Formats: sequence, C-alpha cells, structure tokens
Amino acid sequence: MSNEFTPIDHKNNSDHCIVSTLKKRKCTDDDNSYFRSYADIEIHEDMIADSVRTSAYRTAILKNYRQLYKKTVIDVGAGTGILSIFCVQAGAKHVYAVEASDMARQIEKLAAANNMQHRITVLHGKLEDMNLPESVDCIVSEWMGHSLLYESMLESVLYARDHWLKPGGIILPDHAQLFMAPIADADHLPPRLSFWDTVPQDMYKINMASMRTYAEQCLMSRPHVMEVPGYWLQSHPQKLCDIDLYTVTTADLKTIEASFEFSCFGSTDINGFVVWFSVRFPGHITLSTSPYDSVTHWCQTVLYCQSMPVEQDSKVQGHLELRQSQANHRHLHITLKYRADDQSELEQVYSMGGDGS
Amino acid sequence: MSNEFTPIDHKNNSDHCIVSTLKKRKCTDDDNSYFRSYADIEIHEDMIADSVRTSAYRTAILKNYRQLYKKTVIDVGAGTGILSIFCVQAGAKHVYAVEASDMARQIEKLAAANNMQHRITVLHGKLEDMNLPESVDCIVSEWMGHSLLYESMLESVLYARDHWLKPGGIILPDHAQLFMAPIADADHLPPRLSFWDTVPQDMYKINMASMRTYAEQCLMSRPHVMEVPGYWLQSHPQKLCDIDLYTVTTADLKTIEASFEFSCFGSTDINGFVVWFSVRFPGHITLSTSPYDSVTHWCQTVLYCQSMPVEQDSKVQGHLELRQSQANHRHLHITLKYRADDQSELEQVYSMGGDGS
Repeated sequence: MSNEFTPIDHKNNSDHCIVSTLKKRKCTDDDNSYFRSYADIEIHEDMIADSVRTSAYRTAILKNYRQLYKKTVIDVGAGTGILSIFCVQAGAKHVYAVEASDMARQIEKLAAANNMQHRITVLHGKLEDMNLPESVDCIVSEWMGHSLLYESMLESVLYARDHWLKPGGIILPDHAQLFMAPIADADHLPPRLSFWDTVPQDMYKINMASMRTYAEQCLMSRPHVMEVPGYWLQSHPQKLCDIDLYTVTTADLKTIEASFEFSCFGSTDINGFVVWFSVRFPGHITLSTSPYDSVTHWCQTVLYCQSMPVEQDSKVQGHLELRQSQANHRHLHITLKYRADDQSELEQVYSMGGDGS
Repeated sequence: MSNEFTPIDHKNNSDHCIVSTLKKRKCTDDDNSYFRSYADIEIHEDMIADSVRTSAYRTAILKNYRQLYKKTVIDVGAGTGILSIFCVQAGAKHVYAVEASDMARQIEKLAAANNMQHRITVLHGKLEDMNLPESVDCIVSEWMGHSLLYESMLESVLYARDHWLKPGGIILPDHAQLFMAPIADADHLPPRLSFWDTVPQDMYKINMASMRTYAEQCLMSRPHVMEVPGYWLQSHPQKLCDIDLYTVTTADLKTIEASFEFSCFGSTDINGFVVWFSVRFPGHITLSTSPYDSVTHWCQTVLYCQSMPVEQDSKVQGHLELRQSQANHRHLHITLKYRADDQSELEQVYSMGGDGS
C-alpha cells in the first residue's frame, strides 16, 4: 500500500474563488471572534489582491477629491488602512481609522511608512464605543459581505452616519443594490450528487445511492459562495433592492425582502438562483460583483433549489427574504419561495454563518 | 467600473487539497460542534473519494477476513458506515456502528440498501455513553486527523479497547507512526510574503512593506494543511513516534514529543518542517500520507519557521512537542525548537484549532 519513495508531482492549486461555504472567516457566536478573524492575514491578502475592489475604492476616492480635500474622514472597519491612505492621497486633512481587530497596530505602522502618521489617527476598538474629537465630512467604508449583508458591518456605517457625520457630509459608497437570477448549474451540483450513485459502487462495490438525498439536503441548506460563470444564468437578472446609505435605518436592515419574476431564455432545468451586489460612489463609479464582470473575492452566492424544468419564456416567480439571525446579527437566514409557471410553490431555508439559530 | 454584460469564462477550480488552514471542519469549543461538522456532506465526499484511504481500509479488512469471519466488530466513529459494510463483506457476524453525528441515520439507510440491516446495528451517540449488548472481537476505526492527533478521536478507540474488546481481540489499524522532515518552500511562502513588498506599491502606489512581518507572524503561528511536493524535502525524513494501539494510554496522548536531527541534502534555505503520519494494519498493509506517496485528503501538515541557511550535511536539530489543548482536547498545541548547525536555537508555537487557549 505504501511506497515511501515514489516522488509525486506538485499540483499547483489556486485558491482564488473556489466552490465553498464561507471558509476564510471563522464564524462563531460573538463579535470577539468576528473581529479576531480579521486579524488574520489571509483575508487581507485576498482583499488587497482583489484589484476590482481596491481599484474601485481608489478611483472613487481620488475622483471625489473635491469632497475630501482638507476635509475630515472616518474609515469604518479600516482593516489594513489602505482606504485611509487613499483618502490622505486625495487631500484629506485628517482620517480617523477605526478598527476593532488587532490589525489596528498595523495601520499605525503603515501610516508611518507612508509618512502619513500626522494625518491618520488609528482608533483601536468598536466604533460604537469611540468618542471622536470631532464630527467628520466623510465616511468611507468597505462594509460589504457575501450577499451584501452577511456580517452586517453596514450597521456600524449607519452608526457613524448618525453620530459623527456633519450635515451635508458624504458617504463612500452611498448606494448599494442586490441582484438575482435563476441558474442552471450543470457543472458543479450534478456531479456532486451523482458521485453517490456511481463512485462507491464503482470503487468499492457498495450501493451508497441513499446518500444522494442527504447530500442534496446538505447542499441546499446553506448558500454557496462560488464563482458563477455567466452562461449558468437562465434569464436577465433582476434587482431585488436599492439601499440609499443616507436614509436607510438599522431597522430596515433586519429583514430585506423582495418578490421576483424571471422570464427564462430557453429550455433547461433551473436548479438554483445566484445573488450578487454592486455598490455605487458619487461620480457614477460602480463596484460590481456580477457574474458578468471580473471576479472579486466576494464571488457570487448561489442558493440551490429543487430542479425545475422550464421552457423559453417560462415564468420563474417567487420571493426572497434575508433576515438577520437573532442570535448573532452578523449571520443571515435566507428564505426562498419559488415556482416555475403553474408548478406548485416550494420553499427552502438557508443559513449563512452559525448553526441555524 | 462596471460592465454588466461582458461574459467571463468559468474558471474550473478544483478544491482537492489546497493550501489552507483547516477549513472543512468548523472548530469551536465543544463536542457538539465537532460532531455537527461530521453531519456535513463535504467531509464524507472527501473521505469516500479519497481512494488511498478507503481502499487501504477495504484491503486491510478483506485480507484480514480470518479475524473477522463470524466475529463481532465495533466501528468507532462510523461516518457513512462504509467500514461497517466492508466488515460484513469480510464475513463479520455483527457490526456495531457507533456514530455521534446525524450521519447515524444515513448508516441505517445504507445498511438496508446493501441488505445488511440484520448484521449492522447503528448506535447513535458517543461511544463513551453507550451500553453495548456484548464485547467484540474487533475494533475498526478511521480516527486519524491532520498531524495524526488533531481531533483526538483515538481516545474513543482506546475507550472501546478498554471497555468492549475481548481478550485477544484485534484493532484495525493497530499501529501509527508520525514522521517529519525539513523543507525549503520556494513556491508558496516566499510569494505570499513578498506580496506585501510589491503588490500594493505596484498597484496602488502604497508602501505596505510593514505588513510583511505581520504576515510572517500569522503564517508561522499555525500549521498549514497542504500538499507538499517531494522536492521540498531537504533531508531524509525521521520517524518521531510509534503508537501501538494495543498498549498506548490516553495519558500517553496528552503530550507527544520527540527530538530530531536531520542531515541536509545540500545548500538551501530551510523555512519549515513537514509532518505526516502512516498507520499499519495486520498483514503488512500500510496507509501512508507521506509527501512521497499518492495524495490523500489529509495532505501533509507544514510548520513554517524562520529561514535557516544550510549546506550539504548541515545538521538541523531540535524538538517537537504536540500537546492537547486543555480547553478542548480535540485541539493541538505544537511547540517546535530548532536550529541549524551552530546557529542559536529558535522556538515557535503553533495552534491547531480553536483560539490558542
């Protein structure tokens, strides 16, 4: 069985945006653990290396220099501090970089290395516990999670807005949208299900077909963060919601819901829905995580469902609800109701983070 | 910034054995969460698809049919129940499949689908809470975790041995070994560190070199489960320990430690150590997770360390200690002391699972 000295080839596996549940961030039930996960280097590598994300922020900040020049800024959840640096580059007088994780110490080093230590004040802690010396002209934050609202850092941005933003001050970005489309995944889900029909029988002479139903239940009970190819989409996408960061309230975010109706491109089996978001900055600058755009570290989110045969112009209708978990407001519960044409309506519940509480 | 309708190619990412910390199993601080993670389908897909693992067990069970024919068996941590099925195929009179996670229900279905429901009794719960109707002739278990002892399911096997194995009964496998070798990783770690020197400067005109030290600290503070190519190894491996499952005690497993001395192949920079295990069954059947053998779902475990220049015949010496966490016996703390030739000794501590408690 063992042959200790047969060299094997190194398989170079890239881990950019693989099919997975949320794996990079450890999600247990308290904020401490949430903030601790952001002290880890991997998530910051991913974010800095994500040039779609970071370049969109850089462009938005530099192009809005008129609003930032000689102004004060809060960077909410500053991470490595790169957005604070961009703001100083755009001419900001002073930036308060608020970061609850231990990354806060790194921001100080970064500010010094870029000769900006006099213009960036690092505040190590939760924004909600902070007493800033002044109100600010601008809030900048990269608060978006998978499916936009997973992790709910948006609430801290709204807290900053309500407590520290001067009247007439700006928020970057100031607008967010959630999108959805039905998909036919023939590449990923079907092989994972048929695995149980074939592999154990072929390899070990065991009938494990009974596991298929269980696998289906498991895969349909949580959202999958994955890179969705454009050709999976089986209708034009639909916008589910518009969030105006100047007016939205924390209460509005407890539950986000929308009805949908898609008209299918052609004959296929719909076996899921893809959800993604975009955010907008003043000056028509958009950061999109659409499957039709360059991939970002957010990828897209897939909600698998019971397979539905459709034809050209079939109507796929239903309702999507994203609800914050009561046990941990950073977690999401998703309820999807869906049907095609006159098929009967089905319901599927998904839990994103935590254990379904 | 956004270009909603430019189709992108689907990148087909395989997720077999990627560079990562332990991501498949959620690791929080109690057994419930440990067992819940095994109700998830992915880990079972990985294990069944791992033909090195499953075929080694199948071969070992079928070739030892003389010890199993008309005998009774406990399958400790039965998972999908595949090892229980193999035992019935080998002629076992009765198998008690003990499984604490909700997979227990699937084992019942599997036994029925293979017409073995009268010869497999599924016991849903922890072995330590079970009252079996009889002692058994054989214990079979696939208890091994990353670095062998991560997750410590071995303790349940020893409990089964001490409480339910007849005198003269057998354990499959009955022997385990841990191995180690120094490595020079030029493919993975150096680009992750130099990322901070180059990418932010090139892409965003920001000096983020200060993050390099932080990245190094992060990457050196935990073990990395990854596929190590044979050519990274810079000396012949050394065996760290031998575990005889007939005689080892739970107390023996609290801390496993060994000194090592490697003689280097040639001039290079050692920047870590690779650790792996093998287990042996009666009849000279071995399941190896060596970097020189076919890859398994366990991959290997890498402990990165400070870079050490070495020459041909340089001696790399030190001491490795694997200690169970007091807060959660399934987690491991690893302490590595190491030096090359007459360089001064360094020490690095790694935490595997949990938060370093």
